[in-house]
Amino acid sequence: MERTGLSIRFLTLVEDQIRLVEERMRERVPDHHPDLHAVLAHLISSGGKRVRPAVALLTGIMLGADQQRLVTLAASIEMLHTATLVHDDLIDGALLRRGIPTVNATWSPAATVLTGDYIFARAAELAAQTDSVPVMRTFAETLAVIVNGEITQLFTSRGLSSRENYFQRIYAKTASMFVLAAKSAALISPVDDGVVETMRDYGYQIGMAFQIVDDILDFVGDQASVGKPVASDLRQGLVTLPAICYHEANPDDPDMQAVLQGQYHNEERMSRLIEAIRQSDAIQQAQQEAREFVLRAQQCLTHLPDTIERQALHELGDYIIARTT
Amino acid sequence: MERTGLSIRFLTLVEDQIRLVEERMRERVPDHHPDLHAVLAHLISSGGKRVRPAVALLTGIMLGADQQRLVTLAASIEMLHTATLVHDDLIDGALLRRGIPTVNATWSPAATVLTGDYIFARAAELAAQTDSVPVMRTFAETLAVIVNGEITQLFTSRGLSSRENYFQRIYAKTASMFVLAAKSAALISPVDDGVVETMRDYGYQIGMAFQIVDDILDFVGDQASVGKPVASDLRQGLVTLPAICYHEANPDDPDMQAVLQGQYHNEERMSRLIEAIRQSDAIQQAQQEAREFVLRAQQCLTHLPDTIERQALHELGDYIIARTT
Repeated sequence: MERTGLSIRFLTLVEDQIRLVEERMRERVPDHHPDLHAVLAHLISSGGKRVRPAVALLTGIMLGADQQRLVTLAASIEMLHTATLVHDDLIDGALLRRGIPTVNATWSPAATVLTGDYIFARAAELAAQTDSVPVMRTFAETLAVIVNGEITQLFTSRGLSSRENYFQRIYAKTASMFVLAAKSAALISPVDDGVVETMRDYGYQIGMAFQIVDDILDFVGDQASVGKPVASDLRQGLVTLPAICYHEANPDDPDMQAVLQGQYHNEERMSRLIEAIRQSDAIQQAQQEAREFVLRAQQCLTHLPDTIERQALHELGDYIIARTT
Repeated sequence: MERTGLSIRFLTLVEDQIRLVEERMRERVPDHHPDLHAVLAHLISSGGKRVRPAVALLTGIMLGADQQRLVTLAASIEMLHTATLVHDDLIDGALLRRGIPTVNATWSPAATVLTGDYIFARAAELAAQTDSVPVMRTFAETLAVIVNGEITQLFTSRGLSSRENYFQRIYAKTASMFVLAAKSAALISPVDDGVVETMRDYGYQIGMAFQIVDDILDFVGDQASVGKPVASDLRQGLVTLPAICYHEANPDDPDMQAVLQGQYHNEERMSRLIEAIRQSDAIQQAQQEAREFVLRAQQCLTHLPDTIERQALHELGDYIIARTT
């Protein structure tokens, strides 16, 4: 993954606070069983780039939130994110995440469920420690949105090629958590409702862009760097933006039609289809849509205090786009 | 199960409010999949005797809480209880609960996990709607206690015969939820910290008694009325109070020793042991301990407002004891 000197300022600027967030996340990991301790410590430590807590931290610092509350809030958001990943992996039957065996791959479903529940419980405790009723409401609503989205995905037949369905899906799955990060940080800051609403919108736009780019990388990345097979979603009949764009331009492609009809198990036809999507304009079209979400996110920032944190939140958008190019 | 005219006043007194609680629980059950809708509706409707919300309602009415907040609180407590049952059944691999197929028996683990998560999310939303930070903290802490208890049970070798271990286990599993009910209802009432602490203690004592009686019924009830095989815990190597009392009086019983050493799969020896426990004084001893918890619970009530609700909370103790006799 590319990291240009400029574009990771959104992380370096809050490096110290991210370390405090990780400390809070590690607090009270139960030690009554060595395996459980190891799994929890591993899950909490191997948390990717910490983009969600960075959004919360930058927002809160920009808007003058109390730093200790802000760290607690950011920790609760990253714990909630981690918990959903654990249950997700059980639901998907995924065996690897970021190239590392999932809890699900090595443990029984019982242990996986409880590990996820434990992380949920800690996330809720941390959220409660922000002492803010609006934060806790937003937290609970976000959890409901995420779980509802997963239920819809589990119960809805695969192979839907509609932007509306896709946007709903990625809002529930990803953008809702960015909304939680940006909005909650504003909620614990001395700002008015208009600013809270602006940051909610920023979180939405940046989160949508983030997931679209992830879905592009699923097509254009190589297996080694993405950590899963190319087009893993499409291989499961899950249609993301590149495939939607491709379908719009090529409504008669018989292999795409087969996927939409739930027939996605012919490896040869699937490989041809994936290659056709990779070579088509669909990738650029999806990138263009991601860019528009980023522009709207950056637009949200223009009336906010002109601080280095605002600049970093702006650059986060550039960084997201840079991941695909 | 016996219900004497007197002893169910704790339920009849709040019948109307329980109906409102059930309405709140049914709000926003998602209807995007008929099976899911049916399962959720069933789980929410078939919720046993609603003892936990009754404790919250009686406490709150006795102490002058706002009734709408109280109903919301009671609904969140019963939803949390329901969610833990769904994940529990997955963890135990249970196929029946109250004689009815569990979610786990008819669905995939994925659907079971998500159903539980959905109910958790709704419970958290309802808790947030009480607008009380202390309630939400207590709620989150309770969830952590419950999940920690389940983790300990999953990872700890079976066959422990210690009161300390048993009391910790039933606190986490059952009494913690009664603490949540009684304490949270006090937290949203116009009372001082001493009263909150008193109600926390009441919840603890009554909850411990409730679970001890459940564990006695597991031995003395018949399969038809309890809905599972006699001594189902012991058959899984889980030692509850009657077995602990029996072991104390009969430290040399070779079949009990076999259970404590993790050998509990010999049906003939297990049947003999269960019969020996049923015929022994262990049942009366366990009843006596339950009675002592109830007396301490009733003692907590003596300095509280002398209302009909206080009387009902007192009678709940008598009702719990009457279940085993």
